[in-house]
Amino acid sequence: MTDFRQKALDYHEFPVPGKTAVALTTAAETSMDLALAYSPGVAEPVREIAANPADAYRYTNKGNTVAVISNGTAILGLGNLGPLASKPVMEGKALLFKRFANIDATDIQVKHRTNEDFINTVEAIADTFGGINLEDIKAPECFEIERELIDRCAIPVFHDDQHGTAIVTAAGMINALEIQGKNIAEAVFVCLGAGAAAIACMSLLVKCGAQRENIYMLDRKGVIHSGRDDLNQYKALFATPTDKRTLRDAIAGADVFLGLSGANLLAAEELALMADNPVIFACSNPDPEISPALAHATRSDLIMGTGRSDYPNQVNNVLCFPFIFRGALDVRASEINDEMKLAAVYALAELAKEAVPASVLAAYPNITELTFGKNYVLPKPMDPRLLARVAKAVAMAAIKSGVAEINTVPEYQE
Amino acid sequence: MTDFRQKALDYHEFPVPGKTAVALTTAAETSMDLALAYSPGVAEPVREIAANPADAYRYTNKGNTVAVISNGTAILGLGNLGPLASKPVMEGKALLFKRFANIDATDIQVKHRTNEDFINTVEAIADTFGGINLEDIKAPECFEIERELIDRCAIPVFHDDQHGTAIVTAAGMINALEIQGKNIAEAVFVCLGAGAAAIACMSLLVKCGAQRENIYMLDRKGVIHSGRDDLNQYKALFATPTDKRTLRDAIAGADVFLGLSGANLLAAEELALMADNPVIFACSNPDPEISPALAHATRSDLIMGTGRSDYPNQVNNVLCFPFIFRGALDVRASEINDEMKLAAVYALAELAKEAVPASVLAAYPNITELTFGKNYVLPKPMDPRLLARVAKAVAMAAIKSGVAEINTVPEYQE
Repeated sequence: MTDFRQKALDYHEFPVPGKTAVALTTAAETSMDLALAYSPGVAEPVREIAANPADAYRYTNKGNTVAVISNGTAILGLGNLGPLASKPVMEGKALLFKRFANIDATDIQVKHRTNEDFINTVEAIADTFGGINLEDIKAPECFEIERELIDRCAIPVFHDDQHGTAIVTAAGMINALEIQGKNIAEAVFVCLGAGAAAIACMSLLVKCGAQRENIYMLDRKGVIHSGRDDLNQYKALFATPTDKRTLRDAIAGADVFLGLSGANLLAAEELALMADNPVIFACSNPDPEISPALAHATRSDLIMGTGRSDYPNQVNNVLCFPFIFRGALDVRASEINDEMKLAAVYALAELAKEAVPASVLAAYPNITELTFGKNYVLPKPMDPRLLARVAKAVAMAAIKSGVAEINTVPEYQE
Repeated sequence: MTDFRQKALDYHEFPVPGKTAVALTTAAETSMDLALAYSPGVAEPVREIAANPADAYRYTNKGNTVAVISNGTAILGLGNLGPLASKPVMEGKALLFKRFANIDATDIQVKHRTNEDFINTVEAIADTFGGINLEDIKAPECFEIERELIDRCAIPVFHDDQHGTAIVTAAGMINALEIQGKNIAEAVFVCLGAGAAAIACMSLLVKCGAQRENIYMLDRKGVIHSGRDDLNQYKALFATPTDKRTLRDAIAGADVFLGLSGANLLAAEELALMADNPVIFACSNPDPEISPALAHATRSDLIMGTGRSDYPNQVNNVLCFPFIFRGALDVRASEINDEMKLAAVYALAELAKEAVPASVLAAYPNITELTFGKNYVLPKPMDPRLLARVAKAVAMAAIKSGVAEINTVPEYQE
């Protein structure tokens, strides 16, 4: 682990500090180039945009840019370390946007004073970009921040910790339930964790058919039930009338365990209490709620997913956010609505059912099974078909739901 | 002109909209690369920066980035067209930062509500970057905005319309006065225009030796004199006790005319009234205060500079801003102080006295004279020695004046 730690630090320090830089997309060699790029030529697109603001998409990089914005209040699983410490994560996100979807993302760290001040700051700079990816902002503030920014901004605003996680989780869950022969409308869910990702995941699963009365969500105090008077409005959506109080109470007979909490919080004895053929997604990173070795030793009838790349069924946001923004930007969607999120869910779920190209097999030498089944319920991040499938589905959904400015979907290359 | 207009629009629209994009500086191909760049590896630099904020310079791109920020209230000579319309200019600036100094600049347009709101917004995002270049913000608001941001931010904040213009003007002026055999301390200056650039230019020329009592500044109402009660505090610095009221009054016998106003505002008859061997910098763009053809036809003893690349003695900010930020970033200066600005002035002035490399001659086929003299008082933007000379002088001045975090100057390649 020390070796990996040093490797990670070296990766960030060399050859130059950080991971992203600026590149030019036009010639800038001759004095004529500079006369076109700056004075006096630049006055021409300025005049065009002043007369017709939509021309910003024609003459500037706006339409291919996303701002990756954080206040550093919930960095990875590390907590509230402040905006500056979040910079490597936001740059990492920018790297993934470029690598997977050719989107030009800029990381911006915002000093957090109040919610209103944070919202004002992001709103004030929003027109610069084609979209805004909010990141690592703690709950429950993140809900109000996202909702207000969606209202105030003309471009898509997407809190990836909520919706990216939810989309990938839902896609994998739909496939896992199908393989286990379970109907989502009848399955009993236990969600350990009640933060931004947990609430978004369960909300989206409800839109995919899960029944609220079959969902037990737990925070640090135990099961969120209708008798509690300490719930914020977001947790309260998942309060059920039940006598169950502990994880052990809730998990007995449950079909699904979704962990968005912390390392080793699911005991083998609890796992043993679940219904036959359960699905467990233990997404705490880097250490899951139960180790895959212990889970598989405890019972052989489960499907298990984690957040890790070194085990099967990695539930990883990178399967979603580059492509959902790609689709949204390509048709100039004004928002990322439920229809677009669900389109991403089903596109991901369907792609996992297809045979994978040789290039994907080669990228994962340690993973033996890449055919649809218990150990392959989600596509792999290196699958080159993700862009075409997910972006196209999202773009079409944007058009169909009436939030697209452009009504034709580009030809995506697989 | 229509042809140039279309060329400028095409330059901005193709091959992709805009002029800048994101590039990756690290490998992002294998799943190991992604494990280092993002989860779980990114947690390592996060922890380091949380423990020691200066490590942001080691593990992120912060130290090589500049935010180019505008509210669009004074775009080029076009006026207050709003933030979005300023985007091509800000992207153009980012292009020049990269092209000339390998600095990774991000353009950010800020919706302007109040000065305080604008300042709060920029302050809130400032830690993301290594420096802030303010641009195209109208006077007198720009003065308060810059002063407050310098106070509140730990990184250099530089309003290029003021100081970039002033540095290049002062460098050219020092050389022109020398060639004309005039002493800056005795020269009489007329400055037509009293906006941000004019006030910054005359303030810096005072620091270079010009005497306030020898300066006549004019705004739309005429000479700024001590009897006026309509002056903001910035103009008031240049109010002189004088009976002169008009440009014609002021220019009679003057040694220097500096135009930062508008096209064709200096008549041939006024130019004719100046002292022998005058210096006129007519910097209004694209059309100077007097055309070079008319000026040279009016008198043969002048030195003339303009803002245009197609005439000799181009007074162009690109000679300064990439290199002053390069020097400031390289020694992690906390601000860009007067010592650094003056170092840039003298480095530019001295470089013009050296023989130019063949590559520079080749880049300006239409300009015949590139040896120090009346038609060559400033280096040309394509001169590859600018980076080494200006950045080095600025970095050394930062160290000497005690605002540098790093006390060694890098080896700059010429």
